Amino acid sequence: MRVTVRELAEVVGGTVIGDAERIITGISSLHEATAGDISFLANPKYVSFLSETRAAAVLVAGEQSGITTRGSEIVQIVVANPDYAFAKVVVTYGPKAVPPPPGIHPTAVIGESVTLGLNVAIGAFVVVCEGASIGDNTIIYPQVYIGAHSSIGADCLIYPQVSIRERLSLGARVIVHPGAVIGSDGFGYASVAGVHHKIPQVGTVQIEDDVEIGANTTIDRARVGRTRIGKGTKIDNLVQIAHNVEIGEHCRIVAQVGIAGSTRIGKYAVLAGQCGIVGHVTIGEQAVVTAMSGVSKDVAAKAVVRGIPAIDFKTAQAQEIAVRRLPGTQAQVKELSAKVQDLERQLTEVLRRLGAGGGAGGTPTP
Amino acid sequence: MRVTVRELAEVVGGTVIGDAERIITGISSLHEATAGDISFLANPKYVSFLSETRAAAVLVAGEQSGITTRGSEIVQIVVANPDYAFAKVVVTYGPKAVPPPPGIHPTAVIGESVTLGLNVAIGAFVVVCEGASIGDNTIIYPQVYIGAHSSIGADCLIYPQVSIRERLSLGARVIVHPGAVIGSDGFGYASVAGVHHKIPQVGTVQIEDDVEIGANTTIDRARVGRTRIGKGTKIDNLVQIAHNVEIGEHCRIVAQVGIAGSTRIGKYAVLAGQCGIVGHVTIGEQAVVTAMSGVSKDVAAKAVVRGIPAIDFKTAQAQEIAVRRLPGTQAQVKELSAKVQDLERQLTEVLRRLGAGGGAGGTPTP
Amino acid sequence: MRVTVRELAEVVGGTVIGDAERIITGISSLHEATAGDISFLANPKYVSFLSETRAAAVLVAGEQSGITTRGSEIVQIVVANPDYAFAKVVVTYGPKAVPPPPGIHPTAVIGESVTLGLNVAIGAFVVVCEGASIGDNTIIYPQVYIGAHSSIGADCLIYPQVSIRERLSLGARVIVHPGAVIGSDGFGYASVAGVHHKIPQVGTVQIEDDVEIGANTTIDRARVGRTRIGKGTKIDNLVQIAHNVEIGEHCRIVAQVGIAGSTRIGKYAVLAGQCGIVGHVTIGEQAVVTAMSGVSKDVAAKAVVRGIPAIDFKTAQAQEIAVRRLPGTQAQVKELSAKVQDLERQLTEVLRRLGAGGGAGGTPTP
Repeated sequence: MRVTVRELAEVVGGTVIGDAERIITGISSLHEATAGDISFLANPKYVSFLSETRAAAVLVAGEQSGITTRGSEIVQIVVANPDYAFAKVVVTYGPKAVPPPPGIHPTAVIGESVTLGLNVAIGAFVVVCEGASIGDNTIIYPQVYIGAHSSIGADCLIYPQVSIRERLSLGARVIVHPGAVIGSDGFGYASVAGVHHKIPQVGTVQIEDDVEIGANTTIDRARVGRTRIGKGTKIDNLVQIAHNVEIGEHCRIVAQVGIAGSTRIGKYAVLAGQCGIVGHVTIGEQAVVTAMSGVSKDVAAKAVVRGIPAIDFKTAQAQEIAVRRLPGTQAQVKELSAKVQDLERQLTEVLRRLGAGGGAGGTPTP
Repeated sequence: MRVTVRELAEVVGGTVIGDAERIITGISSLHEATAGDISFLANPKYVSFLSETRAAAVLVAGEQSGITTRGSEIVQIVVANPDYAFAKVVVTYGPKAVPPPPGIHPTAVIGESVTLGLNVAIGAFVVVCEGASIGDNTIIYPQVYIGAHSSIGADCLIYPQVSIRERLSLGARVIVHPGAVIGSDGFGYASVAGVHHKIPQVGTVQIEDDVEIGANTTIDRARVGRTRIGKGTKIDNLVQIAHNVEIGEHCRIVAQVGIAGSTRIGKYAVLAGQCGIVGHVTIGEQAVVTAMSGVSKDVAAKAVVRGIPAIDFKTAQAQEIAVRRLPGTQAQVKELSAKVQDLERQLTEVLRRLGAGGGAGGTPTP
Repeated sequence: MRVTVRELAEVVGGTVIGDAERIITGISSLHEATAGDISFLANPKYVSFLSETRAAAVLVAGEQSGITTRGSEIVQIVVANPDYAFAKVVVTYGPKAVPPPPGIHPTAVIGESVTLGLNVAIGAFVVVCEGASIGDNTIIYPQVYIGAHSSIGADCLIYPQVSIRERLSLGARVIVHPGAVIGSDGFGYASVAGVHHKIPQVGTVQIEDDVEIGANTTIDRARVGRTRIGKGTKIDNLVQIAHNVEIGEHCRIVAQVGIAGSTRIGKYAVLAGQCGIVGHVTIGEQAVVTAMSGVSKDVAAKAVVRGIPAIDFKTAQAQEIAVRRLPGTQAQVKELSAKVQDLERQLTEVLRRLGAGGGAGGTPTP
């Protein structure tokens, strides 16, 4: 790339502070930037990086005073959301992926009655089974499996080695990363005399528009009915979503989370990394489950929970602090115990000495 | 489907309460049922759903009194195990999977000296390496890899993109879900001066009859000898089973569990979601490890354990309750401490006032 | 195999104690050994196994006195590192893998401008995209995907169904187990009014020499810049490594660990099974994070941490012991509370009786 700061500012709708004619030749993080790079400051926590970076220009949320590094002033482009603006720069000038070209690779195996939209790209060794349909402009990378009668919307990106089983539905602009499995059987058995008889899992999975599914994530089909991922929800890598789970719109599910069967997650909820949610509960809208927490019952809307089992975040923090002080508390209890014993002994003595004059109503210490 | 309640009752061996001639046209959960559906009540916890469901008939474990919803009585079919009965209904009337047809897809690559049973189905882009054998009626979905000299029994279902490495043995009626990896190298190194030298993993994996292995689960081959999964054991998605682990018969291993090397799991044990078991320990028969627990030593037969590190379930619960009360306890200790200090001060004063008359044997408070 | 103990001792550079002419016909663990097997004792914890094993000879770190089992003395081969010596025996005499032969399988799809080294083996249904390069002697198993302009060094082993996306770099002697995904998009969004806009992930992944990557592990590409795995680092199965993570040389990352974005792991660090590391922190060199721990802030070099949140190992252990005693502590506090109340009552009575003579300066107990 070779572009002026002025041109970049136009792309992102920002205001330039400094030399608008400076030439930008690369894109980088503040930390890794070399001369000529455009970078960004999204998190105020990293503002100190500005004095160390080699970047030529930086996207910022508000003007930074006098950032001069290595003798040269950094040009600032002030924007509402530096993260979002940086994304626009990357999309416009960054390296492009190299997907399979539109058309069907000659090695792909396409079943009977398959419906393909306009401009669909199907890579090598892809299998599309009978009755499946794929929307306009969707790109299917090599070695993907699409089961019978599954439908995939328009403008989707299905990366290599994804497995989408039969009778599923994916909306438009869905992205599925390599190795993800959608529509595998739910884990359900009827145990009779210790032997586990498989309960057929004949439901489906419904993935709505704008969902993203991470690498090697698994989403099980429903026993009957459907497993549903709401519009705009983003799911990271190695996540497990069990049968009949329903996830609302615009949730964020971070890596290695596990959600057990029939649980419902309200819209805008955030499940942080490695947390686990038991089956048959409801997580309210906008709730946050912090990393590695284990949810064992319903979580209210907008609640923030933490711990195993997960409880209110502030209560959990108070408990953690209390546990940190516990060895000290126990030493204190031991000391108090000795003191009380001492007091008892002394008081007995006092009472003995007063005893002659006697007649107190108090229970004597044994 | 279009069948009478009477016919369904015959399929499941149940007793009809209500109109046996009612026509059933679909299968659903109580929650999602629409008019004409057969549903089931397996967990008494959900009995309240009966008054809300639109189902026309329901499989129940015992007669439910007067369940009339939306003005129409629900027909009941009383069976011993509603879960199991519902499974029979689904198998008989539900949608069927569409596996590759018997025969070898022309794109499949079959090595030398491969033995195929009767009626085997091998899908597109499957690789079966030299010396492997596949039993009667087994279905291999597309894009599966079967390594040299591995043997797969009869009536197995191997879903797309499964990787089964060389010299492994799978029994009959084994189901392996998409993306699972069986026989990868165990994680073993001899570290010399900080450098980790790979210890070759030349053992095998033995999967016995009726085992089910979840999507993207990984089962490592033994260093020497074997990793073994006992007959009838069911393993969910994204589970990690390390080298030389031995799992007994009829266990249930829920999603994202990890079992470290050389550990033994007794038959009928249950490992709930996301729990972890350290290497070289033994989990007794019928033991239960609750979700997200971390087992660091042997667990007795029939024990139920919980926590990190996992301990007896009731003890763990008592500790959790104790921790919940801990901030209160610490406030109480602070208050007691002040009171004791006060008592000490007062008692010193009392002793001072009595002192003139003196002669008490008690240790004076310092 | 059929070899004398003397020959084995030469291979491993060991000293024989006992009959050097004994014939060895197999390789096994002490536990599973049958007559004629060579085995090893790496962990002194298992020394009792020596009296039970059927092995004919055993690799040991130091002479074991008088190990006679089942009436026959076991021949000992004394070596510096029995683990490492056993690995040498296995490599020399154990079963060999059956990789695809050198050359390009006729079904493989090789893009334009691909560079292949000498003696490269490419299996069936492999896709190598344009501009990729593969070093000498590297073996690519079937069904692997290698994206455009990615480079793989010499002497690598890439197992079936691995997905390596575009513009990545793998060094020499790298081993990638089945189903692993390298270079998937990092999980990054700019949320505007609750809608999550994808931040393009256009950075790369750099895997250095001698790295091993486990089955179904996922390593995300950087947002910009690189995700880096240092030379000699070994990663187990189902591990998640997020965008822009940097892992130093010779680390060991055990199964199901998750490392969030931009975190740095110092060389020789050990992350035990299922632990999680938050984003943007630094784990020092040689630090150890114990199993299932959750690291939420920087960890010093050589530190050993444990717990959620992870703290110093000994402090965590002390807290665990304290919690174990907590129900007892709370009973003790209850008892103390009653005693203090009693003391207060009695002291009030004493003061009342002394009161007539009055004049004490102490604050009266309320």
